[in-house]
Amino acid sequence: MGNKKRVMVPVEEIDVSAVKYRPQKIEAPHLTGFTLRLFVWLIETPPLGSLITSFLKRQNRITEMLQNTVIPERPMFRPEFPPQEPELGIVLLDENRDPVARLETAMECLTPYDPSQHWSSDSPPFLYWTIRDYAYAYRSKITTPSVVAEHIISTLEESSGKKPSMPMLISFSAEEVRKQAAASTNRILEGKPLSILDGIFMAIKDDIDCYPYLTKGATTWFHKVRAVTQDAVCVSRLRSCGVIFIGKANMHELGLGTTGNNPNYGTTRNPHSIERYTGGSSSGPAALVASGLCSAAVGTDGGGSVRIPSSLCGIVGLKTTYGRTDMEGSLCDCGTVEVVSPLAATVEDTMLVYAAMAGSSPADRISLKPSPLCLPNLSSSDNLTILQSFRLGKYTEWFNDVSCNDISNKCEDVLNLLSDTFGCQTIEIVLPELEEMRTAHIVSIGSETMCSLGPDCVDGRCSELTLDTRISLALFRSFSAAEYVAAQRLRRRIMYYHMEVFQKVDMIVTPTTGITAPEIPLSSLRSGETDYKVSGYLMRFILAGNLLGLPAISVPIGHDKQGLPIGLQLIGRPWGEASILRVASAVEGLCSGFRKKPSKFCDVLKAI
Amino acid sequence: MGNKKRVMVPVEEIDVSAVKYRPQKIEAPHLTGFTLRLFVWLIETPPLGSLITSFLKRQNRITEMLQNTVIPERPMFRPEFPPQEPELGIVLLDENRDPVARLETAMECLTPYDPSQHWSSDSPPFLYWTIRDYAYAYRSKITTPSVVAEHIISTLEESSGKKPSMPMLISFSAEEVRKQAAASTNRILEGKPLSILDGIFMAIKDDIDCYPYLTKGATTWFHKVRAVTQDAVCVSRLRSCGVIFIGKANMHELGLGTTGNNPNYGTTRNPHSIERYTGGSSSGPAALVASGLCSAAVGTDGGGSVRIPSSLCGIVGLKTTYGRTDMEGSLCDCGTVEVVSPLAATVEDTMLVYAAMAGSSPADRISLKPSPLCLPNLSSSDNLTILQSFRLGKYTEWFNDVSCNDISNKCEDVLNLLSDTFGCQTIEIVLPELEEMRTAHIVSIGSETMCSLGPDCVDGRCSELTLDTRISLALFRSFSAAEYVAAQRLRRRIMYYHMEVFQKVDMIVTPTTGITAPEIPLSSLRSGETDYKVSGYLMRFILAGNLLGLPAISVPIGHDKQGLPIGLQLIGRPWGEASILRVASAVEGLCSGFRKKPSKFCDVLKAI
Repeated sequence: MGNKKRVMVPVEEIDVSAVKYRPQKIEAPHLTGFTLRLFVWLIETPPLGSLITSFLKRQNRITEMLQNTVIPERPMFRPEFPPQEPELGIVLLDENRDPVARLETAMECLTPYDPSQHWSSDSPPFLYWTIRDYAYAYRSKITTPSVVAEHIISTLEESSGKKPSMPMLISFSAEEVRKQAAASTNRILEGKPLSILDGIFMAIKDDIDCYPYLTKGATTWFHKVRAVTQDAVCVSRLRSCGVIFIGKANMHELGLGTTGNNPNYGTTRNPHSIERYTGGSSSGPAALVASGLCSAAVGTDGGGSVRIPSSLCGIVGLKTTYGRTDMEGSLCDCGTVEVVSPLAATVEDTMLVYAAMAGSSPADRISLKPSPLCLPNLSSSDNLTILQSFRLGKYTEWFNDVSCNDISNKCEDVLNLLSDTFGCQTIEIVLPELEEMRTAHIVSIGSETMCSLGPDCVDGRCSELTLDTRISLALFRSFSAAEYVAAQRLRRRIMYYHMEVFQKVDMIVTPTTGITAPEIPLSSLRSGETDYKVSGYLMRFILAGNLLGLPAISVPIGHDKQGLPIGLQLIGRPWGEASILRVASAVEGLCSGFRKKPSKFCDVLKAI
Repeated sequence: MGNKKRVMVPVEEIDVSAVKYRPQKIEAPHLTGFTLRLFVWLIETPPLGSLITSFLKRQNRITEMLQNTVIPERPMFRPEFPPQEPELGIVLLDENRDPVARLETAMECLTPYDPSQHWSSDSPPFLYWTIRDYAYAYRSKITTPSVVAEHIISTLEESSGKKPSMPMLISFSAEEVRKQAAASTNRILEGKPLSILDGIFMAIKDDIDCYPYLTKGATTWFHKVRAVTQDAVCVSRLRSCGVIFIGKANMHELGLGTTGNNPNYGTTRNPHSIERYTGGSSSGPAALVASGLCSAAVGTDGGGSVRIPSSLCGIVGLKTTYGRTDMEGSLCDCGTVEVVSPLAATVEDTMLVYAAMAGSSPADRISLKPSPLCLPNLSSSDNLTILQSFRLGKYTEWFNDVSCNDISNKCEDVLNLLSDTFGCQTIEIVLPELEEMRTAHIVSIGSETMCSLGPDCVDGRCSELTLDTRISLALFRSFSAAEYVAAQRLRRRIMYYHMEVFQKVDMIVTPTTGITAPEIPLSSLRSGETDYKVSGYLMRFILAGNLLGLPAISVPIGHDKQGLPIGLQLIGRPWGEASILRVASAVEGLCSGFRKKPSKFCDVLKAI
């Protein structure tokens, strides 16, 4: 009945130059309040529900792509990379050494720290305290972690009573923060800080274990079925460096959305405009960093969940290569698209946190054979020469497919600045089958999520999730095993196209999101909402990082006419974090004058 | 409703010594003729069908294992092996060299050939001509490939008219065979044979491309949707050595069954007893080799399809490590459990064919990192010392879980012989979660098959498949993506248990099948049949080779009271073909007196 077998041409035979860009068309109603409740009821009512999911899958060509099409490639069940050439001008961080030792190496990569630039009485007040600013202030006895802790605690406690509520943290214990801060203060006063990160405040997304806090994934019940007995591997690495954890940060429930809407704990507001979303799913981490309450945060990124909120909140978000970080102790430790990764106010801080927390799991070291962990040596005199050698790939029609020209224009401006200042060349590229990439991604992440959640749904707990999560789960449940395997065949095709592009360019450049922070519809605060148009814009440029496991970073480059932050995304070669960090640092330098303090900003300077 | 969440203990914490063996219980009706047709109609009628598959999945605990259970391990989407120690006393076959060069190396591994033992007038007539017997006969001008070809052609043409029909080949062209034989005869007469395999007759299973024959997978239509333009990689390697292909061998339709029943082309009969099945799915290859019509054949093994018919027909069947052979040009080139592998009358011949046809695909060489391709050096004086060092793992309760004591007793006798003769030690082992292994296997192979067939089902062609295939497809269609991912989590557990066992033993020993050749119910010849009890016995010991990709070999060790062949299976470490071939060769020597000529036997000696 209208179904026809379709045969894809083998990927090697595709003439990429003949590929036409297809703008992403999403025609779906915005559901919230009553309509949302009704839709959830319909989609969860057995015979009707499967008709609806079947209709949705047909409408979105999922059925055509995954059931009716002969895909000649073998499945690629998780990112598989050919061996990579070493990057230029790097400093190796030995994965076998402890995080403290790696941080010492990382410090050598940074340009020298000059306190007079920041701390002299006539220098302009700086936007964000960097990790080195804190370290200097602690070591110079300008302040102590305990003093800063009190300031953070009082800000958090103050804001918690206010309207609208700004629930950036889901779990928070002032006592726990004071304890960690006191220990850190002691170490520093005794002249024995554990590392440059000693006394640095960070937040952990609620889907990563940080003992003794519960891990709820921002649901109302997940902690009842899963106990936390120790830190996640990445958290434990940071803790060994003296990091102070302020608590578990809010997020889109189970990470299954990109706005950060959360009726369970309240929706985190964007510090740049409290009527707007932070983006998600790492909403709390991004808001906490953007509002100056902590220097960095750790999030998870399975479909842009670190980069999207970083972009919308005007901070830096790094998504590491699949397998570069150890997922043990996070809720999504069994998937093929997710990583744990840092968010920070600056590229320099991102590098330091990355250096401390990264490192593959023992199993991944065998099966994925990662290139060595490394950072770009920004203090070397080669830096400019290397920057000059970089070729940046731009797929113009895709690049320009945004909700408002401001975004693409500002991103374009940065490319011109990079070219004028450093001689970075922009090269036109084409990426075929972007729609197939979206399909392969949703089927992969959806099926893997459903596998993890399944046993709890047996207990009926899945009906205690938010309405938009329940719609997602109804869709995920409808994916067949054969569709999952077909999606993995698509993954191999998309990987091929990207690897071909990386023969010509060193990284791919896009806006991070196709839209700046969207407004929060009032009705959605209580019921949640489903708005595929907004999700489409938020995720438009994100998915190569997840489906293919490529490293990617979002850097703030300025603001749109409404004063909302815009992010530029750099997508790197496999294991190529160092190169994108190098360019991100250059971009940050070029755009530093365009950054603005968020309207909701906790100025730690005032505390001392 | 009776559904309960179940949590598996992490695999490292399982106390294997406390594990109880659970005999496999299969309670399912035998369906054939009218009942089979009715059942297919029911299972293909939408709302009813999904109730039936749902019931079947519950009955067989698939739902419990894959939906209701928390499986703490990460998915393992295809076999992943830790790096392996090199085997003892091996000769390396360089994968980069051509098959002819590799064969020359392989010849060095064999004990010297003494023609007087076989060809003197007073030596007893031998059972099967080995490849070296043919090569000697050709080079000594005792006969030529063309003479043998005529003998084979006339035997095949003669048998094709007879009742019951013995459809060992699906595609056969006398002209094509004569052409190849003439070319080979010329080369040999000119003193320029391509290799030891020049003029050796082989059959190719109908799911592997062998140009110019069609590839039908023993369906009535697959060749209409998939053209053959060249040889499969393994076939092309053999062809470059001078092998003569007699045609495309019969099989269970699409490989989706283990009896060899095939209403499309007729069911291949067991040469040892024509009222009985050959086993499958490589029914034709096994029957052709067992009846002496060709020296070897190439089959595919995704669930015992090489080993089961080899065991039932009294020949040798090797299942290579996943990724050891290049699957390009076979119908199952995109799965995670299948390999192409040789069947032959003797271990020596298996080694030669393996040496010529093996070699990983370029992609697998990168992603699977196989240990080097090698053979055991049987001609070395170390052979006995190495045999003595081998520890054989036996899980006695499993080993004895067969339909008739004859099987386990004969297998046990061989272990005793190995111990008495060579000093091989048998060590008791335990393999937990065998039921989970079966479930993970069926979901993997089923889903991957469904993905490949799906687009053709859209065209309605899947209703032109045999009834038992259609039942399998109805079940496969019911697997959800989340169940597929859960099955891959089970794969990691089962892999762990086996790798633990391989710390203590060098190989695992089992009967190849839990039953000898079953009778063919007359009613099933036209309609096919579904008999899960028989499949259960046939596949009982098979699946570690497929789900975990381990190498395994079936060696004939004698006959049961009814004169039906019994096979012993050796399951090796990853990439450990050489070790199991060494022990298989020893077993073959010990059991050579117990082998019998099949009642249907084409004595090539008579032809000259």
